[in-house]
Amino acid sequence: MTKLFVKTLREDPADAEVDSHKLLVRAGYIRRQAPGIYAWLPLGLRVLAKVERIVRQEQDRIGGQEVRFPALLPAEPYQASGRWVDYGPNMFRLEDRKEAPMLLAPTHEEVFTLLVKDMCSSYKDLPLMLYQVQTKYRDEARPRAGLLRGREFVMKDAYSFDVDDAGLDRAYEAQREAYQRTFDRLGLDTVIVSAMSGAMGGSRSEEFLHPTPVGEDTYVRSAGGYAANVEAVATVAPPPRPIEGLPPAHVEPTPGTTTIETLVDAANQDQPRADGQLWAAADTLKNVVLAVTQPSGERGLMVVGIPGDRDVDPVRLAAAVFPAEAEPATDEDFASHPELVRGYIGPAVLGANAPDPAKAVPYFLDPRVVAGTSWITGANAVDQHVFSLVAGRDFLAAGQEGQPVIDVAEVRAGDPAPDGSGPLEMARGIELGHIFQLGRKYAQALDLKVLDRNGKLVTVTMGSYGIGVTRAVAALAEKYHDERGLIWPVHVAPAHIHVVATGKDPAIFAAADDLATSLEETGLEVLYDDRLGVSAGVKFADAELLGVPYILVVGRGLASGVVEFRDRQAATVLELPVADAATVTAATVTAALQSS
Amino acid sequence: MTKLFVKTLREDPADAEVDSHKLLVRAGYIRRQAPGIYAWLPLGLRVLAKVERIVRQEQDRIGGQEVRFPALLPAEPYQASGRWVDYGPNMFRLEDRKEAPMLLAPTHEEVFTLLVKDMCSSYKDLPLMLYQVQTKYRDEARPRAGLLRGREFVMKDAYSFDVDDAGLDRAYEAQREAYQRTFDRLGLDTVIVSAMSGAMGGSRSEEFLHPTPVGEDTYVRSAGGYAANVEAVATVAPPPRPIEGLPPAHVEPTPGTTTIETLVDAANQDQPRADGQLWAAADTLKNVVLAVTQPSGERGLMVVGIPGDRDVDPVRLAAAVFPAEAEPATDEDFASHPELVRGYIGPAVLGANAPDPAKAVPYFLDPRVVAGTSWITGANAVDQHVFSLVAGRDFLAAGQEGQPVIDVAEVRAGDPAPDGSGPLEMARGIELGHIFQLGRKYAQALDLKVLDRNGKLVTVTMGSYGIGVTRAVAALAEKYHDERGLIWPVHVAPAHIHVVATGKDPAIFAAADDLATSLEETGLEVLYDDRLGVSAGVKFADAELLGVPYILVVGRGLASGVVEFRDRQAATVLELPVADAATVTAATVTAALQSS
Repeated sequence: MTKLFVKTLREDPADAEVDSHKLLVRAGYIRRQAPGIYAWLPLGLRVLAKVERIVRQEQDRIGGQEVRFPALLPAEPYQASGRWVDYGPNMFRLEDRKEAPMLLAPTHEEVFTLLVKDMCSSYKDLPLMLYQVQTKYRDEARPRAGLLRGREFVMKDAYSFDVDDAGLDRAYEAQREAYQRTFDRLGLDTVIVSAMSGAMGGSRSEEFLHPTPVGEDTYVRSAGGYAANVEAVATVAPPPRPIEGLPPAHVEPTPGTTTIETLVDAANQDQPRADGQLWAAADTLKNVVLAVTQPSGERGLMVVGIPGDRDVDPVRLAAAVFPAEAEPATDEDFASHPELVRGYIGPAVLGANAPDPAKAVPYFLDPRVVAGTSWITGANAVDQHVFSLVAGRDFLAAGQEGQPVIDVAEVRAGDPAPDGSGPLEMARGIELGHIFQLGRKYAQALDLKVLDRNGKLVTVTMGSYGIGVTRAVAALAEKYHDERGLIWPVHVAPAHIHVVATGKDPAIFAAADDLATSLEETGLEVLYDDRLGVSAGVKFADAELLGVPYILVVGRGLASGVVEFRDRQAATVLELPVADAATVTAATVTAALQSS
Repeated sequence: MTKLFVKTLREDPADAEVDSHKLLVRAGYIRRQAPGIYAWLPLGLRVLAKVERIVRQEQDRIGGQEVRFPALLPAEPYQASGRWVDYGPNMFRLEDRKEAPMLLAPTHEEVFTLLVKDMCSSYKDLPLMLYQVQTKYRDEARPRAGLLRGREFVMKDAYSFDVDDAGLDRAYEAQREAYQRTFDRLGLDTVIVSAMSGAMGGSRSEEFLHPTPVGEDTYVRSAGGYAANVEAVATVAPPPRPIEGLPPAHVEPTPGTTTIETLVDAANQDQPRADGQLWAAADTLKNVVLAVTQPSGERGLMVVGIPGDRDVDPVRLAAAVFPAEAEPATDEDFASHPELVRGYIGPAVLGANAPDPAKAVPYFLDPRVVAGTSWITGANAVDQHVFSLVAGRDFLAAGQEGQPVIDVAEVRAGDPAPDGSGPLEMARGIELGHIFQLGRKYAQALDLKVLDRNGKLVTVTMGSYGIGVTRAVAALAEKYHDERGLIWPVHVAPAHIHVVATGKDPAIFAAADDLATSLEETGLEVLYDDRLGVSAGVKFADAELLGVPYILVVGRGLASGVVEFRDRQAATVLELPVADAATVTAATVTAALQSS
């Protein structure tokens, strides 16, 4: 500790919101260089290396072969795949001195595809699983939570190449199992959730989420075993209902009802339900105006019609419009569309329902707005709403020809799981891994073909498999800590045992020196607090903050022939005779290492 | 080999000039992604990892502590140090989505300085040696020779921090010795040459060059032990000579003598020397007009006066004007300076010799143009030269007040070493390492101070120490190969032993399987050519190209109970009884590993 490049901080960094971020900075594991960009200090780098090693071992075990691509790449392959445009401002771009467009790669599908195209020509060269552990770049709009959402980060990305779908299924399954083993070994429990493919393209895709309230990702699960990222939850649409016999639509004055709440109140007061029950927000159809910007920069409006008891979920919306981006319409947008009467917008002026559909703002409906559902909604005039407006009679219903559906309303606890496995509950998690069946998207775009068994050229099918390695370090810190500091699992700890000498007595330091040396000679990694003139209190606080899971304290007890063995995770303290201390400690720590 | 991701090529890549580049591509170690930017394939990555390991071990041995900085950094610290401007187009620059200027770091002096400023406050925290093994970026104008001059490359960069000069000397010496051990262990002989500090700033600086004709760097050495990069060779200026008694200057017609050669011929014909000897190029003073562009973009002219038997060395010139850049003056430049009569330029119109020095083009003289030297040079009129123009009498001599000296003439074999150790000879080498005594340049620019023993704030003094790790792999390939392929030293080879099964006999493959397994069980890394239906000739050619240093061939000899053990470096072939083959091979290879 007298030589180690570390400085502990008593105060949380001002920009830190989550415990892992606070503790990794305070314990001197990482230091911020720019938003979402960190330097790794000696203790942090050791943990990172141990995590990387476990990740590599599990990739090697399933036949993965390690390669390493540059982070800096030419634009061409990403232009060919379309991601040069699709990634929008999330990709770091630059020009070299010859003005050639380049990028800092967010992932490497394109160049892996081209490499395999260069190296392989026959089904005999496949199946193939390649991976790298490498620095990636993503220009996040809102980097936050330390390593949890960074702009430069270490990722393990693997890519599988197969001649047929069955091969891809096998590769995907092998990675799925490798991921389970990897996270198990790391000590990070995960939930596997169905996910959207987003920028990657492709079909099947699952995320490995580590459940924690500080997670960036919201997901849902049912008691019956369903689990999905909120983006991937498909709303269960009710069956259409009979239209016949429903009362006709009628416009009513509803002064000052620009919100769902005021509208429901006014309706209950002035237009009570025939059945004596109360109108609820779910009886209203809310029409939300959004501005959508394409990756090309082109901007237009859209309106989303959803039941009034739900909001548009920005995460589901982002996934639905990807690669475009959506945001609430501005005053200017409304000004240029006088037919959109704020607070009183109704289907009659929207999409295919409008008098001139070609000129109307496109209209998308929530899947729940099936034929035969009856709504209170805007009458397209100030202080006017229409009652008993029936989908499929008075305006096009969700799913009817010419009426597009959009599934972006918030998912709520209690909603039914799409697979019928019961009501959903909400949870949050850290996305540690993401596996994709890419299929032939990249191989087609970049013309990767091989000769099959019959001498016919076939397009290769691919998978891509990512693990956020730096993020896994943060997840570990998030899971393994208490109010005093980090408590690493021993197999990823920066050292196996922390020897602390307290007081000023040279005999104590001599005994601690001996113990540290003996433990190192057994092959254990020892962090030794040999600082003179630092109080026992400061040393204990530092040891607890740094988070080496076992601490051996050599102090006043030495006079009576004992030292203290502390187990941070178990929160136990054991007195050991100094003569046995090295042997007992080494045995305990080695056993812990082997069982982990 | 049936599963390994490798494809050997029989043809050299079109863009490859040097053997290391040709062989690393042909043997499937690396693949080009963009000019100067390469991907590492499985075999290459293994070599790289082994080289990195040796580099790390020697840094750890001298107390270096490993950290890892981002490659992507904010511009501010580099603006503060001046390198944001000084690096010019050699630095990759970009803006993030918020238009913050960023860079891909060529080296990390600035951010290491800031990190130490953040973490250290007292002399007790020093001395400190930090290092990283990390990806660096330099936008070379002419990336070439594969890994020898890349734009993305792996570098080990270390930084030392001390309170005083004696500490810096100790750190510098420790790194110097660590470098010698590192290159010795890698199997790369090096010459340590004095160097210029260039963009780094600072005072003392040495390069570790691996001598090879394909090296990018020219250096000089003397039999007496002097060695320097050509940029760093200080010309030995002769002592001034007596001016008294020298004949007066006289202008003579010299029609059509715009080159030194034509001038010398004309002089010998029309103005023979008084002593009967012949005029030589060394008797003429050549005035070379150069355009100099500052990092700010400002452009101006300068004239360099050197003996006519030498040319300006572009490498020495670049170092002398750094961070500005020099190039030959253009027609336009001459047009705007009518006093510069092309082919007939003389001192009278230049610098302090001109009638109006403030308006004249600045004039720099070679150190050899001392007082009392007499020259034939331009008379600033077409077809006119002046004879017996004496430095210190007719124009300011090199070193006289008001007359700046520039040491940019080419260094030639036979020139005296500056330290008097004899004549110089020229050689070429690959720059593997560069160590710098930076002194206080960065600490001052970024205000890194600590309290000294007396409680006084002192500015920290720094060193910086680089090793080109990817370049070392290329240097190894350059040194260790023959016409058939690579021959890696065993401790950096991608595998220790290459087992080749030839023919189609299942008994051969069974025996080879057993041998490969036995050898792996001894802890050796085995590459096993288990391909069926590939001829022995192709397998041998591949094995020789790939360069694993020991090859065990299981083939027809098996019928008579023998296998072949080939040592690529020694070019020996040994028959081994198959029963002993694993034991003998393991012993031989293990011994080689231990002695290396």
